[in-house]
Amino acid sequence: MTYCVGMQLDAGLIFMSDTRTNAGVDNISVFRKMFTWEAAGERVITMLTAGNLATTQSVVSQLEERNKRPADRRPSILEAPSMFQVANIVGETLRDTIRSGAMSGSEAESKFDATIILGGQILGSPPRLFLIYPEGNFIEASADTPFFQSGETKYGRPILVRAYDPRMSFAEAAKLLMVSFDSTLKANLSVGLPFDLQVVPAGTCRVGFETRIGADDPYYNEISRGWGAALKQAFKSLPEYSVPLENE
Amino acid sequence: MTYCVGMQLDAGLIFMSDTRTNAGVDNISVFRKMFTWEAAGERVITMLTAGNLATTQSVVSQLEERNKRPADRRPSILEAPSMFQVANIVGETLRDTIRSGAMSGSEAESKFDATIILGGQILGSPPRLFLIYPEGNFIEASADTPFFQSGETKYGRPILVRAYDPRMSFAEAAKLLMVSFDSTLKANLSVGLPFDLQVVPAGTCRVGFETRIGADDPYYNEISRGWGAALKQAFKSLPEYSVPLENE
Repeated sequence: MTYCVGMQLDAGLIFMSDTRTNAGVDNISVFRKMFTWEAAGERVITMLTAGNLATTQSVVSQLEERNKRPADRRPSILEAPSMFQVANIVGETLRDTIRSGAMSGSEAESKFDATIILGGQILGSPPRLFLIYPEGNFIEASADTPFFQSGETKYGRPILVRAYDPRMSFAEAAKLLMVSFDSTLKANLSVGLPFDLQVVPAGTCRVGFETRIGADDPYYNEISRGWGAALKQAFKSLPEYSVPLENE
Repeated sequence: MTYCVGMQLDAGLIFMSDTRTNAGVDNISVFRKMFTWEAAGERVITMLTAGNLATTQSVVSQLEERNKRPADRRPSILEAPSMFQVANIVGETLRDTIRSGAMSGSEAESKFDATIILGGQILGSPPRLFLIYPEGNFIEASADTPFFQSGETKYGRPILVRAYDPRMSFAEAAKLLMVSFDSTLKANLSVGLPFDLQVVPAGTCRVGFETRIGADDPYYNEISRGWGAALKQAFKSLPEYSVPLENE
């Protein structure tokens, strides 16, 4: 499985993804799921991939190759005039890749499906964030749905829903993502460290900050320990239920 | 879907279940998922059902009928000598019911599967808690795995994992369950109020307290509001991540 989050803030976009891929529980590997294309100052495009690894790697490679062969019939995401067009290109590539895998007639143990969170900014337009489905269509983030999760989304969702605020700084948002990822990691073996974190400040059309958070990251460990204690404290602060027992 | 939790404490057993059943999103009903058989002071048996409603209702009815016809070839859960035997009877009934549904040859839109959390105490033995699978086999709670969830388990799990303590009072445990159910309710349409709550104090072999928590329950509403605020406060209390941006 996987856990990825892309989030829209007033300050820009922030992305986080884990790196664990597994086929069963004994075939575990580390693969990057965050991919970025950048023409610094003109455009920045980031993709977080979830699902069948062969599918997502193929999609990334196809997008990559087209950037090198601009004469290709299919357009390059580095030349698309808008993020909407980029989402269209990525969606079509994803759909065609899944279809060709499925049409080969071979029966795979796991499906060829994959989902992509796509975000970025092209000079002259605001930052945009999309969730692209295996069918190639997509939805866009809005004020009502300002973040997308993919993969193992449930464990880490309650804290996102409760604590998200569009006016958050990147520092606060990074903290929120770490808490959400930590809750997921604690509950599910198929999501694993290291995590990739990336920040794209609005208006810059470039990656503002990017880092990989490993098991020895002091901040992540502080959050992981601290969140357990803070959660217990929060729980303790609520009034107790009255359970009227006859024998008490 | 459904959300049920059965929890073992030093003080005894505590159970909570929601009441929403749905086939799709427009065929929603309220059905009780908590069933109790009691010979007060001698034994108390509580079941929380999740899965196909026709299957679980059939299982409950069969168990119920056997209590009224003790001459039946199949044993009654009110006469079984131990909770292990009760779990065996329930498991076999569940498996046979699922099998007969599946063997009828009819293709149903949803599977006939169901899962049952079973807990209780028979005089002379300690309280015991089981999770019974559709196959009829089961696992028992232990110090390492002191609670079972069924249905939509993921949203409400992180707080259970972090805040559970076997030395909790029933009042604290009820609070914990309300927080866990509230997190699930907030995230998933297929889990709904009212909730059923039941407490079985160790050694009494009877239901100590039972109530239904509706949408207008003042305590639940206080917890629901208070938990959001407490969670935000807990989140705020953690140190922020340092995001070094060039332009800041």
